[in-house]
Amino acid sequence: MFAELDTPCLLLDRTRMAANLARMRGRIAGLGGKIRPHLKTIKSAEALPLIFDGGIGPITVSTLREAEVFAGYGIKDMLYAVGIAPQKLPRVSRLLDQGIDLKICVDSMQAADFVVAQSQKSGRRIPVVIEIDVDDHRSGVPWQDLNQIIEIAKRLTHGADFRGVMSHSGESYGLAQDDARIKAADEERVRILQAVDALRSAGGIACPMVSVGATPTALASSSLEGVSEMRAGVFMFFDLVQAGIGVCSSDNIAISVLATVIGRRDDKGWLIVDAGWTAMSQDRGTAAQLVDQHYGIVCDIDGQPYQDIVLARANQEHGIITCRPGSGASLPPLSIGDRVRILPNHACATAHLHENYVLVDHGDVTGTWSRFRGW
Amino acid sequence: MFAELDTPCLLLDRTRMAANLARMRGRIAGLGGKIRPHLKTIKSAEALPLIFDGGIGPITVSTLREAEVFAGYGIKDMLYAVGIAPQKLPRVSRLLDQGIDLKICVDSMQAADFVVAQSQKSGRRIPVVIEIDVDDHRSGVPWQDLNQIIEIAKRLTHGADFRGVMSHSGESYGLAQDDARIKAADEERVRILQAVDALRSAGGIACPMVSVGATPTALASSSLEGVSEMRAGVFMFFDLVQAGIGVCSSDNIAISVLATVIGRRDDKGWLIVDAGWTAMSQDRGTAAQLVDQHYGIVCDIDGQPYQDIVLARANQEHGIITCRPGSGASLPPLSIGDRVRILPNHACATAHLHENYVLVDHGDVTGTWSRFRGW
Repeated sequence: MFAELDTPCLLLDRTRMAANLARMRGRIAGLGGKIRPHLKTIKSAEALPLIFDGGIGPITVSTLREAEVFAGYGIKDMLYAVGIAPQKLPRVSRLLDQGIDLKICVDSMQAADFVVAQSQKSGRRIPVVIEIDVDDHRSGVPWQDLNQIIEIAKRLTHGADFRGVMSHSGESYGLAQDDARIKAADEERVRILQAVDALRSAGGIACPMVSVGATPTALASSSLEGVSEMRAGVFMFFDLVQAGIGVCSSDNIAISVLATVIGRRDDKGWLIVDAGWTAMSQDRGTAAQLVDQHYGIVCDIDGQPYQDIVLARANQEHGIITCRPGSGASLPPLSIGDRVRILPNHACATAHLHENYVLVDHGDVTGTWSRFRGW
Repeated sequence: MFAELDTPCLLLDRTRMAANLARMRGRIAGLGGKIRPHLKTIKSAEALPLIFDGGIGPITVSTLREAEVFAGYGIKDMLYAVGIAPQKLPRVSRLLDQGIDLKICVDSMQAADFVVAQSQKSGRRIPVVIEIDVDDHRSGVPWQDLNQIIEIAKRLTHGADFRGVMSHSGESYGLAQDDARIKAADEERVRILQAVDALRSAGGIACPMVSVGATPTALASSSLEGVSEMRAGVFMFFDLVQAGIGVCSSDNIAISVLATVIGRRDDKGWLIVDAGWTAMSQDRGTAAQLVDQHYGIVCDIDGQPYQDIVLARANQEHGIITCRPGSGASLPPLSIGDRVRILPNHACATAHLHENYVLVDHGDVTGTWSRFRGW
């Protein structure tokens, strides 16, 4: 059914994606919450109708390019969830001038100061949240440092458009037990709400926006009380890293790379395909998991995984398929010209390398969605 | 001097690139050889005048997209150095019909058969070489298997346009000693010439094309006698993997990623920059070397490396800069809005993520070159 396609190319099983979206929507709605989907994974305007089953937005973005592109498709409510630098603020102001309600985030008084300065300079108060570090993962004011959170919020309340707080439970990507993810989600909520309480009681400062999330915690939360929105992105596609920690199964993974066999080395136990790291990425996120999936799980043309067959190496345009070391499996009887599908470790990284998604619905190719990149 | 640039972006020091090209040209000319540069690293038509100091071509490509794009810029003599599948042959025939002398490569009788079939079907004999595996690296007929090489060549001589042989000394990227690379280059030459001799003596088959190479061996060869051309690509830019095996120094690396500080975590010893894996790639090619450069060496805005400061982690749009573990270094006194340049592990992988090269000549930004991708 894929005979017309040049390879390598990225297949997107829209049926699976729709099911993944329904699962997340059902889960968050069941907790009385709202979703602000992160579009850094998909980066495709054509996907918006499926993502927003009616209506459009709100969204999370990871680059100003994403904000600018999606602004062109009518989305108004955005959170740019990566720390800001002063050089980026003129682009933020231009989006605000176009009527986009773009929230940015800061985690220092220095950043608060230049956001205030730009608000004054541009004549428009910039909407801003404080990023709180709830799990020692990356950015944010440490959740314990309530004094600093209050000081920054005061500064922003007076000179910008302070909206609230956000956190990202990034350490949850490493949690392979359900109860550990439930605990991480609970801790994130408790810790960010401590900041919200401190702002209210110490400073009389309201936090209409209390934004948390990551795919693993979004699917594990036991409560969203006090939280205004959940952010998650990779759940739309899922991937082997998520499957490896038990957040999904490999049957839920909506993207795969279609590749063609270009060589067979029986002397070495290798099949060589035309999907190297330009098609798969160099992500090795499963390397530290219980089962290392190397550069991906190899499936037949219908998407059914071969038992213990992996993409063992990825050069620029060559991929080497082998049996999983120690598995006792044997190479499938494929020869040059035969095709396989490869499930990726990390959907964000693999999708990022492709210009288009080739849509597959119930096994049929039904079209393409374009995809952008850049900053 | 980079104040006008949005970050992250890819800087290309054209002065260094010119010096790298001159070094390779001088070396190969000194051995009486010719270069067929590999354009998989640069993928930019605007770079052609610098690469081909007068004249245009020959080139090596890794995708048919590269062949099609460069055909549009007047290059005729091309080698597509990745194994072929039957589905790709109509595009090959179209390029031949346009007057492009595109050579493809095969390493099996199965592939030879379908190249012959396509030659008959299209009415034009496809130029083809046999890939010889000289170092157990990846593709190719094992160099010892002279019978198979002769059989395939006979088939191609009768039904296609047989041109000769090629090999790729890919294992040389792991050789950190000069003498080991000299030995690898010598072995490659001896082994491929053994195939050439066998074809001549056993089958009366001539090999006008004897194509070898890889950057480490191109710079180590003691002789090119019998070899018609050397292929190399990454030498134009060089990178930390090449520096790590001693093929160049970090001062020769022509590309770097310009990044802006977006956060500072003194509690953790982190600077956070806006260059994550979408800007740097996830290549960890130095991880197995004597000195692990993590995701890259951090330099000041002028390109001078900070002592023992590395990009320790790369998330999608966040990079975390730390001191090299155990070095006793301290973080440079940078704050939000300050800029750094980061040298990449693998130039091919990092360049592949960018839409443009920002050209730097003697410290000044002098323009951009566009860059393409895809297959």
